[in-house]
Amino acid sequence: MHGPFVFQPGTTRDDSRILSLRHGSVMIIVTAIGTPDSAIERIVEHVERCGLRVNVSRGEQRTIIGCIGDHDRLIAANLGRLEGVEQVLKVGKPYKLASRAFAASPTHVALGDAAGTVVGGRELVVIGGPCSVEGRDMLQHTARAVQASGARALRGGAFKPRSSPYAFQGLGAEALELLAETRRDTGLPVVTEVLDPRQVELVAEYADVLQVGARNMQNFALLTELGQARRRVLLKRGLSATITELLMAAEYILAQGNTQVMLCERGIRTYETATRNTLDVAAIPVLKRETHLPVLVDPSHAAGKADLVTPLAMAAIAAGADGLLVEVHPDPTCAQSDGEQSLTFEAFDQLMRQARVLAGAMGRTIAPATVVESAAV
Amino acid sequence: MHGPFVFQPGTTRDDSRILSLRHGSVMIIVTAIGTPDSAIERIVEHVERCGLRVNVSRGEQRTIIGCIGDHDRLIAANLGRLEGVEQVLKVGKPYKLASRAFAASPTHVALGDAAGTVVGGRELVVIGGPCSVEGRDMLQHTARAVQASGARALRGGAFKPRSSPYAFQGLGAEALELLAETRRDTGLPVVTEVLDPRQVELVAEYADVLQVGARNMQNFALLTELGQARRRVLLKRGLSATITELLMAAEYILAQGNTQVMLCERGIRTYETATRNTLDVAAIPVLKRETHLPVLVDPSHAAGKADLVTPLAMAAIAAGADGLLVEVHPDPTCAQSDGEQSLTFEAFDQLMRQARVLAGAMGRTIAPATVVESAAV
Amino acid sequence: MHGPFVFQPGTTRDDSRILSLRHGSVMIIVTAIGTPDSAIERIVEHVERCGLRVNVSRGEQRTIIGCIGDHDRLIAANLGRLEGVEQVLKVGKPYKLASRAFAASPTHVALGDAAGTVVGGRELVVIGGPCSVEGRDMLQHTARAVQASGARALRGGAFKPRSSPYAFQGLGAEALELLAETRRDTGLPVVTEVLDPRQVELVAEYADVLQVGARNMQNFALLTELGQARRRVLLKRGLSATITELLMAAEYILAQGNTQVMLCERGIRTYETATRNTLDVAAIPVLKRETHLPVLVDPSHAAGKADLVTPLAMAAIAAGADGLLVEVHPDPTCAQSDGEQSLTFEAFDQLMRQARVLAGAMGRTIAPATVVESAAV
Amino acid sequence: MHGPFVFQPGTTRDDSRILSLRHGSVMIIVTAIGTPDSAIERIVEHVERCGLRVNVSRGEQRTIIGCIGDHDRLIAANLGRLEGVEQVLKVGKPYKLASRAFAASPTHVALGDAAGTVVGGRELVVIGGPCSVEGRDMLQHTARAVQASGARALRGGAFKPRSSPYAFQGLGAEALELLAETRRDTGLPVVTEVLDPRQVELVAEYADVLQVGARNMQNFALLTELGQARRRVLLKRGLSATITELLMAAEYILAQGNTQVMLCERGIRTYETATRNTLDVAAIPVLKRETHLPVLVDPSHAAGKADLVTPLAMAAIAAGADGLLVEVHPDPTCAQSDGEQSLTFEAFDQLMRQARVLAGAMGRTIAPATVVESAAV
Repeated sequence: MHGPFVFQPGTTRDDSRILSLRHGSVMIIVTAIGTPDSAIERIVEHVERCGLRVNVSRGEQRTIIGCIGDHDRLIAANLGRLEGVEQVLKVGKPYKLASRAFAASPTHVALGDAAGTVVGGRELVVIGGPCSVEGRDMLQHTARAVQASGARALRGGAFKPRSSPYAFQGLGAEALELLAETRRDTGLPVVTEVLDPRQVELVAEYADVLQVGARNMQNFALLTELGQARRRVLLKRGLSATITELLMAAEYILAQGNTQVMLCERGIRTYETATRNTLDVAAIPVLKRETHLPVLVDPSHAAGKADLVTPLAMAAIAAGADGLLVEVHPDPTCAQSDGEQSLTFEAFDQLMRQARVLAGAMGRTIAPATVVESAAV
Repeated sequence: MHGPFVFQPGTTRDDSRILSLRHGSVMIIVTAIGTPDSAIERIVEHVERCGLRVNVSRGEQRTIIGCIGDHDRLIAANLGRLEGVEQVLKVGKPYKLASRAFAASPTHVALGDAAGTVVGGRELVVIGGPCSVEGRDMLQHTARAVQASGARALRGGAFKPRSSPYAFQGLGAEALELLAETRRDTGLPVVTEVLDPRQVELVAEYADVLQVGARNMQNFALLTELGQARRRVLLKRGLSATITELLMAAEYILAQGNTQVMLCERGIRTYETATRNTLDVAAIPVLKRETHLPVLVDPSHAAGKADLVTPLAMAAIAAGADGLLVEVHPDPTCAQSDGEQSLTFEAFDQLMRQARVLAGAMGRTIAPATVVESAAV
Repeated sequence: MHGPFVFQPGTTRDDSRILSLRHGSVMIIVTAIGTPDSAIERIVEHVERCGLRVNVSRGEQRTIIGCIGDHDRLIAANLGRLEGVEQVLKVGKPYKLASRAFAASPTHVALGDAAGTVVGGRELVVIGGPCSVEGRDMLQHTARAVQASGARALRGGAFKPRSSPYAFQGLGAEALELLAETRRDTGLPVVTEVLDPRQVELVAEYADVLQVGARNMQNFALLTELGQARRRVLLKRGLSATITELLMAAEYILAQGNTQVMLCERGIRTYETATRNTLDVAAIPVLKRETHLPVLVDPSHAAGKADLVTPLAMAAIAAGADGLLVEVHPDPTCAQSDGEQSLTFEAFDQLMRQARVLAGAMGRTIAPATVVESAAV
Repeated sequence: MHGPFVFQPGTTRDDSRILSLRHGSVMIIVTAIGTPDSAIERIVEHVERCGLRVNVSRGEQRTIIGCIGDHDRLIAANLGRLEGVEQVLKVGKPYKLASRAFAASPTHVALGDAAGTVVGGRELVVIGGPCSVEGRDMLQHTARAVQASGARALRGGAFKPRSSPYAFQGLGAEALELLAETRRDTGLPVVTEVLDPRQVELVAEYADVLQVGARNMQNFALLTELGQARRRVLLKRGLSATITELLMAAEYILAQGNTQVMLCERGIRTYETATRNTLDVAAIPVLKRETHLPVLVDPSHAAGKADLVTPLAMAAIAAGADGLLVEVHPDPTCAQSDGEQSLTFEAFDQLMRQARVLAGAMGRTIAPATVVESAAV
């Protein structure tokens, strides 16, 4: 049986640390050629009025003004409006709690209860399941299949964000019940998306991990609510979000005290139409360098086509991802959403076999395939 | 005095019309070269099982299968998984209520009470005001200035979506009070952003027009809530949303019965860094051709820099926009958000003068500049 | 008759001016938090070895090193490899001869002989004609039609860059003859594209303006050849070139001594598919601020569809363009290239009428429509 | 000693095959709702006049017109201008000789003489070397280092395409001599870029593989010249080229009879600034499915930063690339170009060690590291 949720608090919010990180930022103002002294003085006064100290260094043609202190009190963009300011440069990361400077060692996020799978460690964790929960049978069937192939958690949408109001919107609360039932039967922790801050409490009752979809990456009301929830969060990169914006979205959750956040690269929007999205595989090493949070990859949404899912999954593993999120469906030709990119059980099993070899070559482990008879933890 | 809100219902939802528009769509399946008859038969069976009729046309190398009926019951993407299917083509617009096929004549949206300004007609409507409401004085001051220059409504943020959790998030409910007070004093209808479905009721009490920001364009929970509200909606295009996705987001609101929707182009994300966003000026004529809803343009967010706001505003007018949304601040060097792109009162007045000439050349009117002494309608 | 070409040399290359502009650049190195003094010393040594002087300013957590001198001797990118370097910032424009700092007043480019039309002044110049020269009749017919509507030059492709080797590649030398013949008959200067450095001499014999297409914007061999030619150049922005890269491409031509360069915005590649390209209308005011060179706009290639050409042309005028390049064809349904976006004679005439009104509103003139009987200058 | 070049002709151009592939395309015209019969007849006449046969299938609201024959005689875009045409759909690949339909089995390209390394087979081939040839010592030194680590060919720029005319443009002919000399000494085949059709003959005298850089992918004059050269070609994807455009660029070379073409993914331009370009790792499996030509990846240009090169290289191998192109420099802090992304010898050796393990996991081989004493084949 799946035990009660035990939240694993990580590093708690440390305001003095954040302030120190803020002070580590540097803001530099460079003046235009020929700026008169009077204009330079007015710039200096403006900066000092905001409570920062300045360091003025006059060159032959330009003057460089370094600003020392808490830059959040000085709005960089506005400086551009002052006479004589040619460029304003900020050095330092806008994310604090999400940064490596805050926590050098990787954060481990436990998917389910205390003894369960941990994301962010040596094990490469695969989460599989249907795009949408379409009914009890298909869900149970899929859960057992992905578990048998080595998946360590079950994904399945209850509330679906769809571009069209006329498209299938998910089974809602009924799907949550089915997910919880399937967890009871298989022991697989459950990942499902939450779309609305008003749903967080409800979804948190049923799911182990609350997913924020790409379209909601900058839904700050939702992020703040999740920051106050006692559940792990899987935060997907927005359709055209920069890596910095993804980390700032995580910062919203972290700043509320919830440190159990996993990031997920799922492809970005570009001009290329051969794939649904363009998997930004370089985001994986960039994120691993910038943050202590685990990095997952969703090759299904990036590819948009089933035959590309496995090559993208392999690329993600080779680039250092901590795990994968893969869409699997008993009969993709009948799926109510994302059928084009869903893998059959057989294709998923092949992906897992290949992943296991590759993970080994990368010095990581991956759960073995098992014949699950009667599940239950 | 600003009278009670009177909601002007437009065309109500007509399900038979929508169904007919759905039937107007055509789905065409083209088979791969050398597909055997047995595979073609299985494709036909699959389509017929979904309740559609087929029209099979065999060519020398390929077979074309036309699918007739309500395609929402047939998921195009899945068809690609059937043996022998090379391409699936859909003809017809996914948006129904937002389309010109649904309503050929332009929708007029009244900004304030019945006798007030209408967007979507011959008058080109300008909405001006600060990015954020920062206090009573600056708001009143700005409202009177933009009104004197010819603005017909006041914009001002109460709840601000900020990339950083550490940045100024708006004055919230206090700002709503100040906006309502300023409306009382000046008679200017008020436009303000709503971020959270739980805020819709509150914001609707104070504001005339509820704005959906770019980051929330596909926040479907929020759109649905707004569809049920009795307030006009100003829907901004998402950072990297296609024009079709913008219309589908409008469709979410329309499908709930709220027909008072204005669209707003505000620049899209591209690789170019000389501007904050790339104003997609072609979106204006494309939208005017595709939809009956009014189209506004926000040159401030597109430009990101004050000196580019006026040229972009002029381009928008020349391309056929129904109105503008412009950020104006008493002292941009001290603005708490978007100072770099806010116009001073003087620059806004110049923009309005130039806009008036250009609107005339385009056969449109624009409100005259006035010396507002004691306001009130 | 079209007289002999008289090249109007502008400002010749002034190496001391360029060097001074180079010195106006500032390079700033910011060190990582906690960088030891020894590393800072090594950075300083590295910079000094390249012949620059340094100005070191030590902050509480970071050190700022300003580098003074000719930065082309110091490769900014490499500095990032030195221990302790967190960020390297360059202030100053990489373009020199193309910059406003080099020539504050606008460059005027004469399209044809000395007495002819000038681009870059108060007159808004429209260049019209077919995408490809398809034969004598269609070219003469089109030339007379666009001239009658107010066009001041004739465009027409002799050598066509086509994505497919199987598509129509242009009539080549034969088309050049036809263009020259048409110029004789109508007096219209001729603009045509050159694809290959080996063609420059040949094409320059026939054409008044040599066009560099978007695909060749960074074909440096071609740019260098054109820099040595005694012909005006119309340089189109590359498909995904930044504004800075466009100016650097112009710099290649200018650096060879040819100062008769016109720039042309023609839409950039984005994710949006409703148009062939996304017209970056903001590029117009950005370029007008950054460079003294004239700025044209090609609304035809940006739109990709005939019904969008006029709105985009109007937007370009309103944003401050110096001229337009418009595709016109006697029967677009039979055009051998770009038929979808070519205007009929009637549509072009309407565009010109609307342009004339709008140009007036912008304080500019545009050539009147005329009934050209027997042409010839 | 490096023997004389022996060109390995592959499949020669077969016009009847190409024509048959052209006929395999299908063009489908869908009419607007309510199109009158007279307009449909005019559409049919237009298509038949171009020598194609039609198959008209009338639905309830729309008519579908299938066009059978050689579509290159019918310009799809123009059809959109005919009354009643709502959409024109093309099924079939525009590339013929590059397609899997033309040659199902992979093309093998020999890098050097007959007995040498082959790209496109089971062996994963790594090409290493400096961005630019800066002198004899650094080139020899680098060649021996990359060879010792397992590289099978040497890259090195003689002619460099640089955004700025003031930047280092390569040593030119002198560098070609040095490359040939280094090949003599080490036996490593040489890959170098050609920028100008006039250089093809010269460069082909010295190099084994002629590289087309990203900026020249649609330099059709250059591609045509290379199609007539008796040298292998390494064709890089353009900065914002689609996969289809890359294949069409290859088609230009193939159509001239040169079948020894290798493709290279090197990152595309997107809005993300954390990397120099965004490696489109999905392009690898898409290309492997679409074409028989070998697919290389250049992780150096994609990353733009040395610390990201190895993760991207691993991702490329895992996604199925046939080889890698890696920039290596004895001292990246002093490189005259691309120092930021060049690997040191040590870093390259580590990349090769990791690549060898990963290639094994993917069922491929990679050349062993060797201690090269006195080279020579």
